[in-house]
Amino acid sequence: MNQEGQDILVQPEPLHEFAFALYQKAGVNQEHAQLMADLQVETDLRSVHSHGTRMIPWYVRSILDGAMNPSPDIRVVQEGPGFAVIDGDNGLGHPPSTLAMQMAIEKARLTGIAAAGVHNAGHFGAAACYSMMAAEAKMIGFSTTNTGGPSVGAPGAAEPVIANNPLSYALPAGEERPIVLDMACGASSWGKVRTLQMYGLPIPPGWLLTADGEPTEDANEGQILTPAGGPRGYGLGLIMGILAGPLVGGLMSCQKLGDASSEHFFIAINVASFTDFEAYTAAIDQGIRIIQAAKPVEGVDQVYLPGEIEWRKREAWVESGIPLHINHLHDLANLAEELKVDICWKW
Amino acid sequence: MNQEGQDILVQPEPLHEFAFALYQKAGVNQEHAQLMADLQVETDLRSVHSHGTRMIPWYVRSILDGAMNPSPDIRVVQEGPGFAVIDGDNGLGHPPSTLAMQMAIEKARLTGIAAAGVHNAGHFGAAACYSMMAAEAKMIGFSTTNTGGPSVGAPGAAEPVIANNPLSYALPAGEERPIVLDMACGASSWGKVRTLQMYGLPIPPGWLLTADGEPTEDANEGQILTPAGGPRGYGLGLIMGILAGPLVGGLMSCQKLGDASSEHFFIAINVASFTDFEAYTAAIDQGIRIIQAAKPVEGVDQVYLPGEIEWRKREAWVESGIPLHINHLHDLANLAEELKVDICWKW
Repeated sequence: MNQEGQDILVQPEPLHEFAFALYQKAGVNQEHAQLMADLQVETDLRSVHSHGTRMIPWYVRSILDGAMNPSPDIRVVQEGPGFAVIDGDNGLGHPPSTLAMQMAIEKARLTGIAAAGVHNAGHFGAAACYSMMAAEAKMIGFSTTNTGGPSVGAPGAAEPVIANNPLSYALPAGEERPIVLDMACGASSWGKVRTLQMYGLPIPPGWLLTADGEPTEDANEGQILTPAGGPRGYGLGLIMGILAGPLVGGLMSCQKLGDASSEHFFIAINVASFTDFEAYTAAIDQGIRIIQAAKPVEGVDQVYLPGEIEWRKREAWVESGIPLHINHLHDLANLAEELKVDICWKW
Repeated sequence: MNQEGQDILVQPEPLHEFAFALYQKAGVNQEHAQLMADLQVETDLRSVHSHGTRMIPWYVRSILDGAMNPSPDIRVVQEGPGFAVIDGDNGLGHPPSTLAMQMAIEKARLTGIAAAGVHNAGHFGAAACYSMMAAEAKMIGFSTTNTGGPSVGAPGAAEPVIANNPLSYALPAGEERPIVLDMACGASSWGKVRTLQMYGLPIPPGWLLTADGEPTEDANEGQILTPAGGPRGYGLGLIMGILAGPLVGGLMSCQKLGDASSEHFFIAINVASFTDFEAYTAAIDQGIRIIQAAKPVEGVDQVYLPGEIEWRKREAWVESGIPLHINHLHDLANLAEELKVDICWKW
């Protein structure tokens, strides 16, 4: 997504220290500041720039403006053998979401599958952060979130009716890398639209409609995202906003105003409850290799597994540093200047 | 999907008796024959003709040919607080799938969420048959299946790498009808392609590729279905084939030959474990009404919820009879003649 020549390489460790310092200056406690830096730098390393450190100014300004609670009392409000619901106390979304997936993983060791939800919390970043926690624990992870008020249309709709809710699955493999799908139910994500806009690039056709339902490639005019695959993306987005919504004590997107708090929902499936884990990983490894060896169309180097490109970038960028767009870095630098934190890159 | 003037109205009760008789003649026991007729007529009533009684000749001929076991010993091979795996003993897919969702529902009453899988069984019909069982039990239901060998491509692939796996969610409402999504991960389903082919209609552009990866609208030439929404449909289809695959003791589609047995996978989420059921249904009912009242684009009468069109057809067709295409009925009549069962419609 970055334009050639517009990127600066930033090393992950200094970026982590920088992010950690910004959250601490905003009044976030050390444990949460550490977690935010962990997840957001990891998201940048996976090349998902739209959902990584680019979001820091938005989160930190929400705290500084008093819209978000920097010191939430995160409480488990419902709990049973295979379920939990957590109240995020209007704080950052990542800490209660991490707790929710940890609880789902622990419970699934006994029950085979477990789910946990979060309500009254902020944006949780990249959905894959949480599904991948399950994959590391030899489980299949699922995560979704309700991103707020309606911004995506339905087939035949001239106004937005659902939020652009993402969903992510992460599946453990054996010798191969986990399979990681992280997709928005809209034709794209507002994060990607805003990233392209920040880079001064046009929006691909088919993503956006104006407030009158007319197609547009201008991010300033786009008011409605189209659902991916028509009724499929509409249906999935609607349902993700019920799992991460009324199921966990929240509302549907169409009942919300734009900047309402979010709900999040997580499932962990313990592979070893259902089958022999080694037989499972042998099948997955073999399947991955068959797909990687499939005949590509002309001009394509290979067929990739979901998440494979992100794994490869991560492996390269851990060594080389993360290429971040100068506009991304300017936004961070402006916040850092306000908070009197030194930047960790050279212009 | 039906062409004007090519349909005959068939009443659901005689159609049920007819289907029941065909299965019994094929050696299927009374309980399973009853279940098959229940689910397949219900699927026709919901206007999903591709997955209802149209499939009877395929299933029954598989039994008559000896490829499928008419008297399976359906056994639970893994079981715990929130999970079960069932061996279908190479029989029809619907009976072990119904048992699996029943078990998931019963377990979820205690654990909050439960999952059950089936391996070594036939095609299970329409995925919504099972997710809707959960919605009737005041739970959110999820169902998916692995439809066999690869038939759907991936972005950049010149050969099929995944099966066209469907997934379904059904969500209970209060006064409103349940929300029911039932979607294939391919741009369409082979069932719909074959139904259009049976009706002599062209295949919409974008659905099919030839064996060389060239787009085609000719069902005879189409060898690869495209994934819906590119990487989204590819990722979801791949993952559905792991849930309904290696997770429950089976294989990935790319490891299978065309007519291998299927795996199925079901989740039930007990709404009342996570939140107050009345608060949940109040939010869902209000959300449904907001979406139904959303501004439609010109020429569209209203914005529909997933599954709403099927509910409306069902309500009308219970009264009027089910319009079935004459080719659909000819296939059934041919089988009925072989098995000496009287047809229940007039040509």
